[in-house]
Amino acid sequence: MLDLLFSPKSVAIIGASTKELSIGNVITKNLLHYKYKGPIYPINPNADEVRGVKAYKTIFDVPGDVDLAHISIPSKFVPQAIEDCGKKGVKFIIINSAGFKEVGPEGEALEKEIVFIAKKYGARLFGPNCQGIINSDPDVRAYCDFTFTFPDPGHISVVAQSGGVGAVIMQRFFDLGVGMRFYASNGNACDISIEEIIRFWGDDEKTRVIVLYVEGFADPKGFMEMAYEVAAKKPILAMRGGRTEEGAKAATSHTGGLAGIGLSTELIFEKTGILTFRDEEEMCQAAIAFASQPIPKGNRVGLITDTGGPAIIATDELVDLGLEIPSLSEKGKNFLKDKLYADASINNPIDVLATAAAPHYRAALDTLINEEQVDSIYLNFVTPPFADTESIAKEMAEVSLQKKKPVICNYMTDKAQWTGTTKILKDGGIPCYDFPEMAAKALAALTRFGKIRTRKIGEVKQFNDVDKSKAEKIFLEVQKSNRQLLTAQEAYNVLEAYKIPVADWKVVDSFKEAEIAAKKIGYPVVLKADSVSVIHKSDVGGVITNIKDKNSLTKYIEGLQKNIEAKDLKFLIQKYLPGGRELIVGAKAEPGLGHLLMFGLGGIFVEVLKDVIFKIAPVTDVEASEMLSSIKASKLLDGIRGEKGVNKEGAIEIIRRISQLVTDFPLIQEMDLNPIVALEKNNFVVDVRIKI
Amino acid sequence: MLDLLFSPKSVAIIGASTKELSIGNVITKNLLHYKYKGPIYPINPNADEVRGVKAYKTIFDVPGDVDLAHISIPSKFVPQAIEDCGKKGVKFIIINSAGFKEVGPEGEALEKEIVFIAKKYGARLFGPNCQGIINSDPDVRAYCDFTFTFPDPGHISVVAQSGGVGAVIMQRFFDLGVGMRFYASNGNACDISIEEIIRFWGDDEKTRVIVLYVEGFADPKGFMEMAYEVAAKKPILAMRGGRTEEGAKAATSHTGGLAGIGLSTELIFEKTGILTFRDEEEMCQAAIAFASQPIPKGNRVGLITDTGGPAIIATDELVDLGLEIPSLSEKGKNFLKDKLYADASINNPIDVLATAAAPHYRAALDTLINEEQVDSIYLNFVTPPFADTESIAKEMAEVSLQKKKPVICNYMTDKAQWTGTTKILKDGGIPCYDFPEMAAKALAALTRFGKIRTRKIGEVKQFNDVDKSKAEKIFLEVQKSNRQLLTAQEAYNVLEAYKIPVADWKVVDSFKEAEIAAKKIGYPVVLKADSVSVIHKSDVGGVITNIKDKNSLTKYIEGLQKNIEAKDLKFLIQKYLPGGRELIVGAKAEPGLGHLLMFGLGGIFVEVLKDVIFKIAPVTDVEASEMLSSIKASKLLDGIRGEKGVNKEGAIEIIRRISQLVTDFPLIQEMDLNPIVALEKNNFVVDVRIKI
Repeated sequence: MLDLLFSPKSVAIIGASTKELSIGNVITKNLLHYKYKGPIYPINPNADEVRGVKAYKTIFDVPGDVDLAHISIPSKFVPQAIEDCGKKGVKFIIINSAGFKEVGPEGEALEKEIVFIAKKYGARLFGPNCQGIINSDPDVRAYCDFTFTFPDPGHISVVAQSGGVGAVIMQRFFDLGVGMRFYASNGNACDISIEEIIRFWGDDEKTRVIVLYVEGFADPKGFMEMAYEVAAKKPILAMRGGRTEEGAKAATSHTGGLAGIGLSTELIFEKTGILTFRDEEEMCQAAIAFASQPIPKGNRVGLITDTGGPAIIATDELVDLGLEIPSLSEKGKNFLKDKLYADASINNPIDVLATAAAPHYRAALDTLINEEQVDSIYLNFVTPPFADTESIAKEMAEVSLQKKKPVICNYMTDKAQWTGTTKILKDGGIPCYDFPEMAAKALAALTRFGKIRTRKIGEVKQFNDVDKSKAEKIFLEVQKSNRQLLTAQEAYNVLEAYKIPVADWKVVDSFKEAEIAAKKIGYPVVLKADSVSVIHKSDVGGVITNIKDKNSLTKYIEGLQKNIEAKDLKFLIQKYLPGGRELIVGAKAEPGLGHLLMFGLGGIFVEVLKDVIFKIAPVTDVEASEMLSSIKASKLLDGIRGEKGVNKEGAIEIIRRISQLVTDFPLIQEMDLNPIVALEKNNFVVDVRIKI
Repeated sequence: MLDLLFSPKSVAIIGASTKELSIGNVITKNLLHYKYKGPIYPINPNADEVRGVKAYKTIFDVPGDVDLAHISIPSKFVPQAIEDCGKKGVKFIIINSAGFKEVGPEGEALEKEIVFIAKKYGARLFGPNCQGIINSDPDVRAYCDFTFTFPDPGHISVVAQSGGVGAVIMQRFFDLGVGMRFYASNGNACDISIEEIIRFWGDDEKTRVIVLYVEGFADPKGFMEMAYEVAAKKPILAMRGGRTEEGAKAATSHTGGLAGIGLSTELIFEKTGILTFRDEEEMCQAAIAFASQPIPKGNRVGLITDTGGPAIIATDELVDLGLEIPSLSEKGKNFLKDKLYADASINNPIDVLATAAAPHYRAALDTLINEEQVDSIYLNFVTPPFADTESIAKEMAEVSLQKKKPVICNYMTDKAQWTGTTKILKDGGIPCYDFPEMAAKALAALTRFGKIRTRKIGEVKQFNDVDKSKAEKIFLEVQKSNRQLLTAQEAYNVLEAYKIPVADWKVVDSFKEAEIAAKKIGYPVVLKADSVSVIHKSDVGGVITNIKDKNSLTKYIEGLQKNIEAKDLKFLIQKYLPGGRELIVGAKAEPGLGHLLMFGLGGIFVEVLKDVIFKIAPVTDVEASEMLSSIKASKLLDGIRGEKGVNKEGAIEIIRRISQLVTDFPLIQEMDLNPIVALEKNNFVVDVRIKI
């Protein structure tokens, strides 16, 4: 679909000025410099040539077809230019000009106008307010962009919402001597979206890894759909800018406050199998490994080193990143004993010593390739002035090219002196890093992706025993009365409709009814004020626990009536459940996405330690189970030092039922089951808040 | 003291072979290549010249004085060579040869022998099993090392215990075009220590920042003494390798298990004001900022950018690292409104727009220099092909050279194309980074150091009300009876001698005594089995809490007698204190250093969340107070949501008294007050374990 955008047979530049620093001029220069294979048509009403290329007064004067046109003229002239392009039959239009959506309502109207015009002619728009695209294919060499980095052919494709970030990433690959396949930065993205670009690259054979930078999604669900599809085919590495936008806002104790806006983006990455990064350098360095190395089957690393300190640091970093450094088999050790210097270390890391020669390295490499308990190979290679490093590098390259296990290298040298060695490693597809930490991080990224690729996703299983229409009626009532918050009675009824276990309860108007209810439920009971105006009940003294008899109940009800002046004040009588762990399950609507679900241990764990985990609804059975195991204090759920654990299956079921509830009712804005008292056998919701 | 080591007027190389790949030959080559200013004397019994330099048969044949001699001959010949050097009057000897302490007892003996010989002659030894030293001073140019990186003069001095790590760090500075002052890697360090080297550099005017890599300390206390002294004069940036050595060992619930071996090194760094890093790249990049920029007065950053995305990432990263992005003053904003483009953003970050020219940048720079609420300046500078970047860079350089506030730059360009701009920034002393994250990390390091430099250290105040001799008697008794663990009675008596508040207690032999004690203490009480063989009492049912009356007490004592078969079984009756927070204070001996103190919240906070903090004893009042405020759950100590806080002053006093106790008694191996019940007014130790 986007073939002619990335591989245009001809390019016109509307606004190709003769001023050397103008964008149209720079694009013309870039196309020439990059040796674009098709004809270039600068469009300029006042010049005969631009950068030595024949210019045309209008696009209609161009003799041949135009696959792709740049527009870099003031925004007010852009609609007419698109009209002209349409008439000429241009397929793709990159609008470099700014002055659209990003400048306010007027620009937004202008942007809508150009989309309308383009549609009329079936032309596709890229931008506006954007850089453009690059295709390094030797048969195309399209540099339709005003940036300044000229990538060699390679297998990494980069798409960035921010041109500044994209340019820096591209420059990094260039500085590292690593090739790229495609580049795209589409600015306002009025028509062609990042989703469409990535989907196109998903089917591009020469793109082995996709690097993505975003600051948000116009269409989160559309992105997810694409991401599921493409991430199953090839690795997507992604980073999200603006994650602390909301970080400044004080977090409150509830789901809404704990889920910053940035969170949903990273949750989308997680759910769809995209590898998330928080550092551009780390993402770039990982991409290099993905571009040439296979994905490891597990997290067990075998190291070969010729110097001590960097291997220690590598071990520190690998262990920190969750990788394992297994012992070698007796067979492997005996082989090494036979082949290496007497002083060499035949453990893992294998220290071949700085004086080692090619056969020593080869023996170590072969050992690690053959070891069943090793999934990947980490080389720690300093180039001693007294070693024949080229013959050593040849052995490394040969083993790397076997593609049996990933091989990466912390390559400690002066590349300007060791040019031959450096080239051998590069031709062998061995990703080389300047420091042990970065090499470890890149290997960890490969490993993390291997884990994602083979993970069990599970199924979203529906509960058929829920009473959806009962819940629907309640929500309708609340909407009718123009309220956002459900009363306790309404909220508990919704939970019961979805078979979520709640502690025995009854809402009453008077002391008399309260007494009857308490007797039926059985003392001790909890008394709560039920009024939509009272949210954080414990702050206003609206919750009294462990009421043991009728007399106390009378006294407390009188107290509530005196303290809380609310016309709608009712009393909720509930079974008092001492002991157990407090859990919290919550949900929060996320525009364009659905809901985020939250799970955590209640009380201080959520309020002080923020030890909570989020997932996007609907969750699968596996995801719901992961929510329990991913919190930091998850051991508490299993019980510790004589304390009993909780019914985890029950908690997982509550999460899944809440997932189904919020998916059934998109109107739910926020809900919290806080706390759920989790006992060894059963879990009971003892407080709930639902906002629509 | 080490003047002639780093600035030798002549260098001899014992073992200067004619084989090109031999170490002695490489050192000769390096001295020549680096243009060493003094005479070079290769010592070789069989050659007339090495690398074109006249060689001498023995060191005695050398015509002039020898300040510094390299020895790179097999280890067994080293003693004689040192003897010869001594006789010749050589001041410093770098022993590159391996085969000493690192190969076992025989090598260790050889190492002792050479130290003995050198002492006899007053010669100082560097190494053995080491690289050597480099001095980039244009008047010296001493490259007494076999490595391959030839640094330009600069202000960063690097010392590394591991030569491999040192070489990589040196190469990194070289690749980044950043100069160095000194380099040293002293291997086995049999005589000249890292402490001595750093102390020497502390007084070297041209060394502005010291970069240190260690894997451990032979003399932790000596290192601390030096570090206090030098870190007060100039920044020391340090990293420790091998921090996960102990990470593999399963942590237990007590102080011993939570304090890994690596920890004490980082605690030494913290206590003495050394800036710790966990990533070499980050340490190197920070060093570059330290080498040319002043230290910021606070953590408030003003940003100037000409592109959106990277400024967003910079903000994310700065905020993550604890820096603030304050709003600008009205005056500042008005000034900017007047000077910048209409579409520019006059908030912080100030977006001057990609089309901005030098005067726009200067206006933004001047604004940030003048803003009182801004402590440092972060430039986010992409070089658009349509901008006059050199004139912009000149403004940046000029403001940087004012040295009023630190200026760092995320410099997004192709340095091969923008050579002029790059040189202007470099000459302006502006540290340039390839990615916003790294620039933010470097600025955060400067800021972190500013905070360390101005921090209050506090005082180690002695309590004079302690009864040291009473405690001493108890420890003597325990030693006499060949025990390691104190009984409960002994441990509580030690605490009482140091006026550490304990819950009312009495140790008894029989039920009858128990009954009297319980009555006196007042029910409810706790009953504990007191036997050195029972450590984790709650695991064996040896602790019964909340015993309300005599009958229950009888029953439980009988139970204990039945269940615990220990000849030394006694019963500890203690006041039962329900409610409050559980705290834990512990101490652990650290060889060569003293003790580490630990503080945390007890129970799951220590066992599951490992939320504890360590400091080296003796702690000052400020440090003890920091221990409370540094745990993640510190808010709990202040009380939260209606729950009461604890007596923090009391807890701080307990830490300080324990600090005094372990400092008074180095024989204490491990002790834990776990838990201390912390109430609003008072804290009481309710369980204690002391091991000597």
